[in-house]
Amino acid sequence: MKLLTTLLFGLLWQDVAARTSKAYKGGRGRGKKLIHDAVRRSSEARVTRDDTKESVACAEALATPIKAPKPNIWGQLTGDEAASVIAWLFAQKELNLTVSENATSWDNSVLLIEALPPNKTDALAFIDGCKAAPAKYAHVLLDHRASENPTYNDIIVGPLPIDNVTTTWKPLTYPFTKKNDGKVRNLDADDDALHDQWLYVIGADVADITMDLWGGSATGAENDTLDIWGIDPLWQDDNKVIRWDAFWSIPEDDFDAETLLPLGLYVMSDVTGRDPSKWKLEGWLYNDIFYNSTEAFRDAYFSEGFVKNGANVEGDWARTDQQGPVFPLDTAYPPTSIAPTGARFAVDHDNKYVEWMGWSFYIGFSRDTGMSLHDIRYKGERILYELGLQEALAHYAGNDPMQSGTAYLDTFYGFGPYAFELVSGYDCPAYATYLNTSFYVAETTHTHISSICLFEYTADYPMQRHSTSKYVSVTKNTYFSVRSVSTVGNYDYMFTYGFYMDGSISVEVRASGYIQSAYFANNEDYGFKIHDFLSGSMHDHVLNFKADFDILGTNNSVQLMSLVPATKRYPWSQGKTRNTMALERSFIESEKSSRFNWADNGATQVLVVNEDKPNKYGELRGYRILPYTGTAHLTVKDSSNVVNAAHWAEYDVQITKQKDTEPKSAHPYNSQDVHDPPVNFAKFFNDEKLRKEDLVFWLNLGMHHVPHTGDLPNTVFTTAHSGIQFMPSNYFMGDVSRQTVNQVRVEYGGGNVSQVENFGQKDQVCALDFEPAEPDLSEYKGDVVVRKFPYDPNHPWYETDAIV
Amino acid sequence: MKLLTTLLFGLLWQDVAARTSKAYKGGRGRGKKLIHDAVRRSSEARVTRDDTKESVACAEALATPIKAPKPNIWGQLTGDEAASVIAWLFAQKELNLTVSENATSWDNSVLLIEALPPNKTDALAFIDGCKAAPAKYAHVLLDHRASENPTYNDIIVGPLPIDNVTTTWKPLTYPFTKKNDGKVRNLDADDDALHDQWLYVIGADVADITMDLWGGSATGAENDTLDIWGIDPLWQDDNKVIRWDAFWSIPEDDFDAETLLPLGLYVMSDVTGRDPSKWKLEGWLYNDIFYNSTEAFRDAYFSEGFVKNGANVEGDWARTDQQGPVFPLDTAYPPTSIAPTGARFAVDHDNKYVEWMGWSFYIGFSRDTGMSLHDIRYKGERILYELGLQEALAHYAGNDPMQSGTAYLDTFYGFGPYAFELVSGYDCPAYATYLNTSFYVAETTHTHISSICLFEYTADYPMQRHSTSKYVSVTKNTYFSVRSVSTVGNYDYMFTYGFYMDGSISVEVRASGYIQSAYFANNEDYGFKIHDFLSGSMHDHVLNFKADFDILGTNNSVQLMSLVPATKRYPWSQGKTRNTMALERSFIESEKSSRFNWADNGATQVLVVNEDKPNKYGELRGYRILPYTGTAHLTVKDSSNVVNAAHWAEYDVQITKQKDTEPKSAHPYNSQDVHDPPVNFAKFFNDEKLRKEDLVFWLNLGMHHVPHTGDLPNTVFTTAHSGIQFMPSNYFMGDVSRQTVNQVRVEYGGGNVSQVENFGQKDQVCALDFEPAEPDLSEYKGDVVVRKFPYDPNHPWYETDAIV
Repeated sequence: MKLLTTLLFGLLWQDVAARTSKAYKGGRGRGKKLIHDAVRRSSEARVTRDDTKESVACAEALATPIKAPKPNIWGQLTGDEAASVIAWLFAQKELNLTVSENATSWDNSVLLIEALPPNKTDALAFIDGCKAAPAKYAHVLLDHRASENPTYNDIIVGPLPIDNVTTTWKPLTYPFTKKNDGKVRNLDADDDALHDQWLYVIGADVADITMDLWGGSATGAENDTLDIWGIDPLWQDDNKVIRWDAFWSIPEDDFDAETLLPLGLYVMSDVTGRDPSKWKLEGWLYNDIFYNSTEAFRDAYFSEGFVKNGANVEGDWARTDQQGPVFPLDTAYPPTSIAPTGARFAVDHDNKYVEWMGWSFYIGFSRDTGMSLHDIRYKGERILYELGLQEALAHYAGNDPMQSGTAYLDTFYGFGPYAFELVSGYDCPAYATYLNTSFYVAETTHTHISSICLFEYTADYPMQRHSTSKYVSVTKNTYFSVRSVSTVGNYDYMFTYGFYMDGSISVEVRASGYIQSAYFANNEDYGFKIHDFLSGSMHDHVLNFKADFDILGTNNSVQLMSLVPATKRYPWSQGKTRNTMALERSFIESEKSSRFNWADNGATQVLVVNEDKPNKYGELRGYRILPYTGTAHLTVKDSSNVVNAAHWAEYDVQITKQKDTEPKSAHPYNSQDVHDPPVNFAKFFNDEKLRKEDLVFWLNLGMHHVPHTGDLPNTVFTTAHSGIQFMPSNYFMGDVSRQTVNQVRVEYGGGNVSQVENFGQKDQVCALDFEPAEPDLSEYKGDVVVRKFPYDPNHPWYETDAIV
Repeated sequence: MKLLTTLLFGLLWQDVAARTSKAYKGGRGRGKKLIHDAVRRSSEARVTRDDTKESVACAEALATPIKAPKPNIWGQLTGDEAASVIAWLFAQKELNLTVSENATSWDNSVLLIEALPPNKTDALAFIDGCKAAPAKYAHVLLDHRASENPTYNDIIVGPLPIDNVTTTWKPLTYPFTKKNDGKVRNLDADDDALHDQWLYVIGADVADITMDLWGGSATGAENDTLDIWGIDPLWQDDNKVIRWDAFWSIPEDDFDAETLLPLGLYVMSDVTGRDPSKWKLEGWLYNDIFYNSTEAFRDAYFSEGFVKNGANVEGDWARTDQQGPVFPLDTAYPPTSIAPTGARFAVDHDNKYVEWMGWSFYIGFSRDTGMSLHDIRYKGERILYELGLQEALAHYAGNDPMQSGTAYLDTFYGFGPYAFELVSGYDCPAYATYLNTSFYVAETTHTHISSICLFEYTADYPMQRHSTSKYVSVTKNTYFSVRSVSTVGNYDYMFTYGFYMDGSISVEVRASGYIQSAYFANNEDYGFKIHDFLSGSMHDHVLNFKADFDILGTNNSVQLMSLVPATKRYPWSQGKTRNTMALERSFIESEKSSRFNWADNGATQVLVVNEDKPNKYGELRGYRILPYTGTAHLTVKDSSNVVNAAHWAEYDVQITKQKDTEPKSAHPYNSQDVHDPPVNFAKFFNDEKLRKEDLVFWLNLGMHHVPHTGDLPNTVFTTAHSGIQFMPSNYFMGDVSRQTVNQVRVEYGGGNVSQVENFGQKDQVCALDFEPAEPDLSEYKGDVVVRKFPYDPNHPWYETDAIV
């Protein structure tokens, strides 16, 4: 057991250990806890030898440790690196930085320190050639608030390691379409004042009304039963900054149901400029009637005939716990997947590098977009240079200004900080291998324990089968998944990349969690009425992914192949025409025609191919990009909310020539300047040729969501699901899943089996004890936090109260 | 063990037993074998009590036996019933029947005896009311060949049980649009002559050429290395019956690869009429050149400059067995789903009735379309009266007359006879509960053992989740599946109906097996070249399903709800317009507008609702019909092959008023008269009103398939997949998956868990031994066959050699 414990500790915790030094294990009594935590992951599948059977002992547990062929150049900064960068930054007097804890809204502070991803040009020279690794730089985001015109400033610091002679900083500019020295205005600089000097003052001012309507108030007091918050992005027209805020009930318990409790009262404010004393209350809206001042609203409210609507109040309908009579058989333990011989893949935890059945890839992680995959290869041949989320838009509509004005661009909040610890046995199988991820906040590095899971699963259906009167051949469909979940406010996004034995890859997003709902009054054209005073509030989710394919090198083309109806005369058709169908093929020549939607009736295949390297039959080797389920682009045309901040949401498929200057389709602060955002995706399209070029596919997943009663209390993953597959198209010479031994051929005749061909599977039978217990979730953790400035690596602490 | 064995035998085998009488168990030593066979299904999950743990003993194994609330009126005839009907038929002299074994092509024989499904009108009075079960009738298909104009005759015999006074037969006419006394012409009456007196004669006639080209011949001899077969349906224009046949290589071993081995030579014959001596060879086609006689072809062939192409020859590329180097970790046993506490559902095997977590339904089975589901209810409230396959079209295209002329309508072959025994641990989990199915052929009843499987599975992702800084709530997604697989010739169709905890249902089809390919020459516009002389041969699969919804009764309506871009001015928008989106709703008023496709960008929801029974918020309770993945309608417009035989394939969604006279969208012999088929689906649409009516949805699943090298040797299920979901839309008052205890809520703070709420799951933990062995497939069986005429129920035998 000691050996196993040590091994498990080593595998699971080296991520943390690497960042927190060896002293961590003994630090403040937490080391032991961590060991327990690691061990519980294998407690569901303890391995025993059973000498009474012919079986051999099962292989032991977690992923085989390996060493990545090259270091992960898309990885995160080490703790030491981050600490050295922050110390160096504080030494640069011209930056005039204040430690976050002490910073007022008129001080400059550091919001982010993370690794700057290498340029592809430099990366290829390293990963495919014998060049050295690209120089490492830190990407730093400064919150420059000591100014009448506060900005977020993207800068780079490097090269690393810090050297007081060679290390410099400069604005980060090349990845952005906006040429403004890496700066974007900050509309949230006065967030504290907004609450204390504005919204709560307004709340107090109308407390007579809110008490009368709902028996509560929103004043910033501890015992408030109401909350005030509003649109995102803010209205940014006519050189003004306008916000609409709504009143919400605060749930009476811990359930996160506030977004189900709108009250139907909205207030409009002009918050242009940094002086709260110059902000202006512009009016009120209640029951579709606009009042241009608080006085006008109050006069109306206390007049006869004023129509008062009811309040949305928390109840069991808004709580996720078990409810209703229990089905008798439901208390029995349900079917469960186990890994009887342990993990059948290999992981380099330090480098977040994975190998499984011919596949290999590196995992990157960033504050903005969470997990990404890099250098995805099959048998050593790269298929994708990069695959990852870029941005997620949740665009609402409604008869009220709150819902109408909401169009969340979620990287503003960040997918990284919200990629929480996964729940073993629920979010991922209990036997999964977990990786930690880290992000920087306020001079600390937070580590989300077990926030990426890696696991194999066997589908409930096979990969292949065929029956005849003489034999049946069937192959198991065991696939590999990489998963993380980010809960951005009310919504939980589950991201899963799947790898399959036949050479295909899947990209899937599922959405659960609480919807953001609307007050029901007059909202019929924007949603179902789903509770007493509640509307489901229609919205579009659009999630943009970057898929940088490299099919046999970087000189790739996009081929379209359509099935079309055809009327044809043939040498054999006796002079008559026949109504049939045929294939039409074409290439996308340039960025002039590289933004399009999936064809009606799935008639058109989108293929990424290498024209210079056909297979021996002359067909172009490539991959097909196949909508798997529920893809969506944005319904809204020329959205008043996002203006130029989300042009990537307009089509299903968009293809550009790869450029080091266009690494991402979005910027987390696009919402701060929607007319002139840091990254305007439409500007990527400038007619460049796309034949035999390095290509990037920007692919949208998404859902049109009109929540109905079944979305209460939470949306369910069953149907809130979108996915795309990448499948080989003449890429291999045959189905590569033939390589697996996890198949059988049974020969029979006359009622007897003459042969069962197991392809060597049987030899590996082994015995183990299985106890179908729930994983012990009492060891579920929050973040591990390590102070970086002043650097204090030996005193990490746990934190769940303030997740970011 | 004795008790368990008895129990298992009773559960698994009563299907067989019911048909074969109690004497079966001792008959010819087979009883014992059957017991072994039954027992092996539970050998993978033996249950033991472990007294050293707190756990209770696990529940035992298979599905709980229950009694269906009412008999299954969609079930099959009993063995006794079928035997009595056949005996009665042979006593009706006017039918002039000959026992199949002795029947020549000029005798009349019985092709089919099965239960006639009840009219819905009669069925509802029974299942919802207190009326008696509808009278039982047999549906019989006679092969009327003692005629110059042979026909297939559908008749009904009844009422059952047979009574020589009251039982009569009459033509079955009401379910067909063609009014022809239930008769359709038989184009295959002279199938024996076609081979012996026509195709093999032609094969022998050109043996000099085939020997020269490919070193073989097709003469009907045992040692033939070539085969000849052709188009389906036959050309039926101008009162002629024309066939094109192609030459194929016969594989040298048992692998079923013949459809991968076309040779590129085609022969055209006029086979009009029943006299083979009057049939005419009309010409030959080779390498896109048509020759109008054998002489012309031979002259050309032996002339200088004749271009000879190569042959497609079997090799490992066409074999499904394991190939290539084995990945080291692949020999370890992969992750596997187990059912540690046994089945959590209940089955009435006699009535093929199932209950799982609030859901209940009956299973029907027919020769034409295999498995179907009936009276699907959630908590006793019917959602669907009927759900089942109607027909499957595989429509090819190509430059040659063979592929161009192929448009299989697979119910001609039948999904029932090809629903083979499922492979435990591969087609379904080893712990699945299996049902048998039967079909009639040539005075015998064949029973496919274990050809329907029922199982629960837990998805690799949860049903619901939400994280906050204080707690995480996650619910397992355990679902229930009903599955059968039909291998119709080269293709294996896997049909799966899924039931989910949130009230949703899925209908899924996957396709594997061998493609039917084309000879490569000049076929570029119709497929990829995928092997030396092989083209993948593009084709459309379209599979039509009937979904007869009953939402809170039979008065239902179809509501369409679209998300549309909108430019609006609001009371609060300061006089400005805003670009946003809104919902547009409408109802389908009549069959004039009830044939349509899924909307672009998934913008339109298709809902079946009950307008008279809104929920308490005024919203219409109903179900949404949601394309899940890869649906398709037929690319070809006005197909020359199927003409009027498959109008159901033209749209994604088609809705009719339910009529007892329109029970099925197709007839298995539609291919015999494509201009005037027994069921012309287009005739269902006659402008009837669809508001507040009993509605039937005819839904198409399918795939556009352009096979590439990855389809060799077999197409894989990963991407050859089509599905539709039915999801509740305001049907329930909230998410009904909240009812499950298979969820957890973990409360935490400051790095510690304060509570793990398991909702009673933990109490049910139990222990068992798990040995991850392959199921013992050496007991895989073929059909159990029981002779019905002369009736010999005590002497069943096994048969795999001739599956139908």
